[in-house]
Amino acid sequence: MKKRILSGMRPTGKLHLGHLAGTLDNWVKLQDEYECFFMVADWHALMSEYEVPSVLVESGLDNVIDWLSFGIDPKKATIFVQSEVSTHLDLYMILSCITPLGWLERCPTYKEQLREIKSRDLHTYGFLGYPVLQAADILIYKAQKVPVGEDQLPHLELTREIARRFNSLYKKEVFPDPEAILTKTSRLLGLDGRKMSKSYDNAINLSDSEEVIKKKIQTMFTDPKRVKLSDVGHPDTCNVYSYYLIYQPQAKEDVHDWCSKAKVGCTDCKRRLALGLWDKLAPFKAKRKELEQDKNQIKKILAEGREKALEATSKTMHEVKQAMGI
Amino acid sequence: MKKRILSGMRPTGKLHLGHLAGTLDNWVKLQDEYECFFMVADWHALMSEYEVPSVLVESGLDNVIDWLSFGIDPKKATIFVQSEVSTHLDLYMILSCITPLGWLERCPTYKEQLREIKSRDLHTYGFLGYPVLQAADILIYKAQKVPVGEDQLPHLELTREIARRFNSLYKKEVFPDPEAILTKTSRLLGLDGRKMSKSYDNAINLSDSEEVIKKKIQTMFTDPKRVKLSDVGHPDTCNVYSYYLIYQPQAKEDVHDWCSKAKVGCTDCKRRLALGLWDKLAPFKAKRKELEQDKNQIKKILAEGREKALEATSKTMHEVKQAMGI
Repeated sequence: MKKRILSGMRPTGKLHLGHLAGTLDNWVKLQDEYECFFMVADWHALMSEYEVPSVLVESGLDNVIDWLSFGIDPKKATIFVQSEVSTHLDLYMILSCITPLGWLERCPTYKEQLREIKSRDLHTYGFLGYPVLQAADILIYKAQKVPVGEDQLPHLELTREIARRFNSLYKKEVFPDPEAILTKTSRLLGLDGRKMSKSYDNAINLSDSEEVIKKKIQTMFTDPKRVKLSDVGHPDTCNVYSYYLIYQPQAKEDVHDWCSKAKVGCTDCKRRLALGLWDKLAPFKAKRKELEQDKNQIKKILAEGREKALEATSKTMHEVKQAMGI
Repeated sequence: MKKRILSGMRPTGKLHLGHLAGTLDNWVKLQDEYECFFMVADWHALMSEYEVPSVLVESGLDNVIDWLSFGIDPKKATIFVQSEVSTHLDLYMILSCITPLGWLERCPTYKEQLREIKSRDLHTYGFLGYPVLQAADILIYKAQKVPVGEDQLPHLELTREIARRFNSLYKKEVFPDPEAILTKTSRLLGLDGRKMSKSYDNAINLSDSEEVIKKKIQTMFTDPKRVKLSDVGHPDTCNVYSYYLIYQPQAKEDVHDWCSKAKVGCTDCKRRLALGLWDKLAPFKAKRKELEQDKNQIKKILAEGREKALEATSKTMHEVKQAMGI
């Protein structure tokens, strides 16, 4: 029997190249090897986006279109919206009751986010419970594997601790210990050289048109030491060059040569990058266009996913209740 | 249109005379005047009883039998189990996201309970959210009135603050300000003179048989100054006399006379109290017996209650989502 995976994305905006490189490409591979449940984590999104929650709805459907365009196959993976599968909150409530407050207050990612994220007030009851909901999401599928980035490891460790606490409290091995599939952090940076992120306004979205992509790439920062066309550049420290390495590795020697010998200017170099990137994305964009025009199909996929998710989670909830004697 | 009331009891054990005097008698009156929703608050019970949750199931059905025996009429009031109406947790999650942590940490009843209740570990994430779930319970019915004891007033104040925060955040008056119907604290004490409570093992349960009631009343503490039969007693400070005032007020002068003039001994006085109390309870006990033998009827009542509760709460959730744009 295939091992089970649970993973999700928070619908807080349009997906960009960073999501593709960091998560989506990975999901596409995983769906062949594992029984995958991929969810639109809208409750998790609400925890930070509660001031303007309409973004959840706009992004949810749009993200799923990206998932499908870039290769997630609903025949292989179950795709669903978290808030539509009510068992998630049932288990969340049960796990809330057995999770010591201190575990959450001491969680390193929690403290870091309170410190780092200044644009919204995260000192809420809901946000403190973020990892408990994540634990419920994972455990209700009895997922054996969870694809995570290194920064998410403390959350997975908390999931394991909560699972063990449940098993020991009710003297039954209901939940397996979920293991991490460590996702390599993508080397892809944003247009300005910082981490690619919607909030920095430095992202190339998966839904961007050819025109937009061309324009955005022209705004990319290049080697600041190359002021004039005749100056030699330093491709190994240039963000544009790192894009070539990811999206057009076959051209890497040529580009290195153009730049370090001042044969081609930055504008031209970026124009070529845009063309190459568009070539890569074009086939997926065609699929996107098709899906955008048939939103009922998406809704049908999500409705079927909801049924499958409900079936899988109801089985677990039955075992949970039996172990607890409720 | 009748105003709406939401109230509930936590199924943490058998109901006793204290519940009858403090809550149930009151509910019976309220159901004529208001549109009442009475719930078995099993999620709330789980927050404290998570170590031995089987008590929830045993008590839930048993409590409802008491409700029905002592006069709650399912044709007048909607009776349901909290965990069976999934919309409660949906609103709970939404309100969690907008409730500042500090409001909960500073809640006086929270701090008091952490201090007072030593028999179980309440330093959990779930228990901190107790008032948020209470707010969701009340607000999802848009209840205008909530019967509460004085000790519960801080929680109702918190519900009002959460309601106002929601209305102001999403710029729509979705939730009315729920008002308290202040329930007088019952004068009834336990057999040992402390507050009547399951945990003190000093309660007369509504389901106790005549034999058990007689035995329990014989264990009641009486006036400690009356050592011998010939000593005069002080009925005004005697717990047994206070039971007479509640359950046989017509006998109060006689009893006062027997005691203060040493005409009747304590054992005899308690025997007469037991008889009188049994006379009061007997008609309800007959109804209880009937209901105990027909648990399917109870289940049917709860299933119908669930449907009505789902209907009422789904309407509110629709408005909630509309206001939030989700």
